[in-house]
Amino acid sequence: MHFVIIGGDAAGMSAASRAKRNNPQMDVTVLEKSMDVSYSACGMPYNIADPARDMDDLIVRRAEVFREKNRINLLTGHRVDKIDPATKTVSGLIISSTTDSNITDTLHEFSYKFDRLLIATGATPLIPPLPGFNLPGVMPLKSLEHGRAIKEFIASSNSSATANILNSSLKPVKKAVIIGMGYIGLEMCEALRALSIEVAMVKPGGQFLPWMVPELAEVVKQELYANSVKLYMGHKIEKIELCSNNTLSVICENLILDADMVIVASGVRPCSELAVAAGLETSISDSISVDKTLKTSDESIYAAGDCADAFHVVTGEKCWIPLALRANRAGWAVADNVCGIETTLPGVAGTAVFKVFDLQVTRTGLSVKEALKAGFDPVEVVIQTRSKAHGHPGSEAVHVAMAGDKRTGQLIGVQIVGKDGVAHRINAPAVALHAKMTVADFAQSDLGYAPPFGPVWDPVLTAANQLLKKL
Amino acid sequence: MHFVIIGGDAAGMSAASRAKRNNPQMDVTVLEKSMDVSYSACGMPYNIADPARDMDDLIVRRAEVFREKNRINLLTGHRVDKIDPATKTVSGLIISSTTDSNITDTLHEFSYKFDRLLIATGATPLIPPLPGFNLPGVMPLKSLEHGRAIKEFIASSNSSATANILNSSLKPVKKAVIIGMGYIGLEMCEALRALSIEVAMVKPGGQFLPWMVPELAEVVKQELYANSVKLYMGHKIEKIELCSNNTLSVICENLILDADMVIVASGVRPCSELAVAAGLETSISDSISVDKTLKTSDESIYAAGDCADAFHVVTGEKCWIPLALRANRAGWAVADNVCGIETTLPGVAGTAVFKVFDLQVTRTGLSVKEALKAGFDPVEVVIQTRSKAHGHPGSEAVHVAMAGDKRTGQLIGVQIVGKDGVAHRINAPAVALHAKMTVADFAQSDLGYAPPFGPVWDPVLTAANQLLKKL
Repeated sequence: MHFVIIGGDAAGMSAASRAKRNNPQMDVTVLEKSMDVSYSACGMPYNIADPARDMDDLIVRRAEVFREKNRINLLTGHRVDKIDPATKTVSGLIISSTTDSNITDTLHEFSYKFDRLLIATGATPLIPPLPGFNLPGVMPLKSLEHGRAIKEFIASSNSSATANILNSSLKPVKKAVIIGMGYIGLEMCEALRALSIEVAMVKPGGQFLPWMVPELAEVVKQELYANSVKLYMGHKIEKIELCSNNTLSVICENLILDADMVIVASGVRPCSELAVAAGLETSISDSISVDKTLKTSDESIYAAGDCADAFHVVTGEKCWIPLALRANRAGWAVADNVCGIETTLPGVAGTAVFKVFDLQVTRTGLSVKEALKAGFDPVEVVIQTRSKAHGHPGSEAVHVAMAGDKRTGQLIGVQIVGKDGVAHRINAPAVALHAKMTVADFAQSDLGYAPPFGPVWDPVLTAANQLLKKL
Repeated sequence: MHFVIIGGDAAGMSAASRAKRNNPQMDVTVLEKSMDVSYSACGMPYNIADPARDMDDLIVRRAEVFREKNRINLLTGHRVDKIDPATKTVSGLIISSTTDSNITDTLHEFSYKFDRLLIATGATPLIPPLPGFNLPGVMPLKSLEHGRAIKEFIASSNSSATANILNSSLKPVKKAVIIGMGYIGLEMCEALRALSIEVAMVKPGGQFLPWMVPELAEVVKQELYANSVKLYMGHKIEKIELCSNNTLSVICENLILDADMVIVASGVRPCSELAVAAGLETSISDSISVDKTLKTSDESIYAAGDCADAFHVVTGEKCWIPLALRANRAGWAVADNVCGIETTLPGVAGTAVFKVFDLQVTRTGLSVKEALKAGFDPVEVVIQTRSKAHGHPGSEAVHVAMAGDKRTGQLIGVQIVGKDGVAHRINAPAVALHAKMTVADFAQSDLGYAPPFGPVWDPVLTAANQLLKKL
């Protein structure tokens, strides 16, 4: 049995490792186009924030370890260009030397037959097809290579400025523009401010965090303002230009922003081209369509991670929510299924958490907008309570939005924002979504209480109690 | 309709307020023997730790507000001595003046007819019937009055010592002994150390935190040692003596501990004497037996809070777990039922959280010992993981114990100990217990992930994944 995996990141390496654990005799080949496997991509903004740390600190397990210890035939620098389901063959080009091969510089073709294939090609940043997005200093952040590029750009700009090299085209990075205001943009914001870089964020859409209830989005916005970040919503980006003084100009509708560096964080799209070319079915946002066993429309081919879709536990419908935990979990499930251990994944709740300076921002389930679209009759409350008990010092505001369905009483979604004890508070309602609890049932949950950690009624319970009055 | 409530703490005042909210015309009388109502009892150790704070800061709502704003006939200083279910009468003595009455000093009898009665008499500290437990400086901590006494004892001892009053019987509190090693004892420990008081803890039982898995109990123990707390397990307490130099001696089997102050934290028992005398049924630990509507064995009498029992969501059986959230929730449910809004409470998961210096200690559900007793076939894992993602600074060890039932795969209980992000992590498995999830289902939960707040696989998911291998 030859199990071939395209992509050596979260889903791919999880699948490869687990397949070898399940069945050490199985031939497992991983084809990864870059030289990096198994790294903490989400850690990149925090790594960029700290010049003392090496970007490679984020590597969880090196390629050699997978090869030597896990006995995985891990081939880095291998770019797959074609999947042929009929002949069960993948083929492509070797674009960089792999550690354990003698191939260097020249391009070699390769081709592998598979019994089972996993497509774990991930997602790629959406780069607007506009002039100037290929200029030096205009960079996305998705792969470790991107992370290194940003880090090196900042470091070398600053050092060449320090060395006062007159002819250097590099200026120290004092001002950055972030295009996009999603998770990655917001996390990069904090990283750049930690390096004393001025930050302006711009996006075409008029609404800041459109999936979030306005009261909570306002709290996040104020945190950005408090940290001197400038926000420009509703400005269509037209082009980026290199100015005569070697700075960049982000030219938008009714706005020009100068920068020494531009981070392109306009979202990501699933890397599903190979799958599409092979005739596999796709769904939401062109992600590869998989069933609950992670199988594509071809019997022998699975897909997992950011390139594949998932079922949403609230709607029961397909969704595309590219997040790390799902990628790891889906990789495991594919390995189990390939090894004959039948495994199905119930789906995702869309639980996400991120940090915006001192603020913890988190969500699970559907927003009211999404709920309406999914056919629910959503009712929502937005409350403000405290992170600690009455009279306990250090208490911070906790803002909770909670939505339930008027017809069934079902819990639909929760959003929480605050500076203290917010991040993990989302997990209780996330489990409730998996259990398809009603708001009434969730409101009865026996959650922990101690004055340093919360009020008697946890903020999510207070929200549930308030929501019950409206349902 | 006259709704009479005995006890003006969490359950009693929650019920009174909600009854008036449900039905502003209802006559609601609360009979509270002390002068304090509605305070954050769990906040007392933290208040004691800070001499600058007044104990009365913990009062959430003052008696006058309940009287004037909520129109509750709140009678403080009223001690109920008898419930007569046949005549639907409660009677007792006025033992202190109430704010809005002219009665002072002299004892007056009172008696009230009720249509519905709520017994919310709470719990009382277990004071061993041994010599010396009534000496000055030997104090329990349950009511606000106890909290004030401890705080005043420390303050006046220190100030008289500062004033160098030669004949004062008070010595500055430099050494304290805590009898008992439960939640209250452990929280007091931190409070006293914050005041630079040496602390020794002693208890008759040989095992530290017997409900906790040994590996996790050891982590808590080491945190106490790191904060110079001395622990003496397995020493039966015999008596307390006042020494000639005005210090106290706690005389135990094979051990004598000197102290300027002794905190008695040997547990609590439900105040169910009135209910027992009235012929009401009791259950576990002599708590008042109630059904899911909080009704006792008498049609017209309810019980709620620390004096009453509850159903455990894992076993479905009766249990007695006196905790604040349940008291508030049960008070509301009684009010709803009294007002004709039929309400049942599913039960408790026994979720508890407390702080031991820098450590967050938490549990939900059953320990393996409890699970065995309840007829389960428990299997347990104990894991150690990290509080933040790979490579993220400030990550701390997180210890998780998780138990499941071998026969059904059901999740039974979870315990977590660690210094970072532990407190709220217990709530996800707590909700899973309410939903009667299997470990396999819980392991599929889509929990939040961001590097500053945890690893990709949340510690509780890692524990669930490990436990699955054993189930």
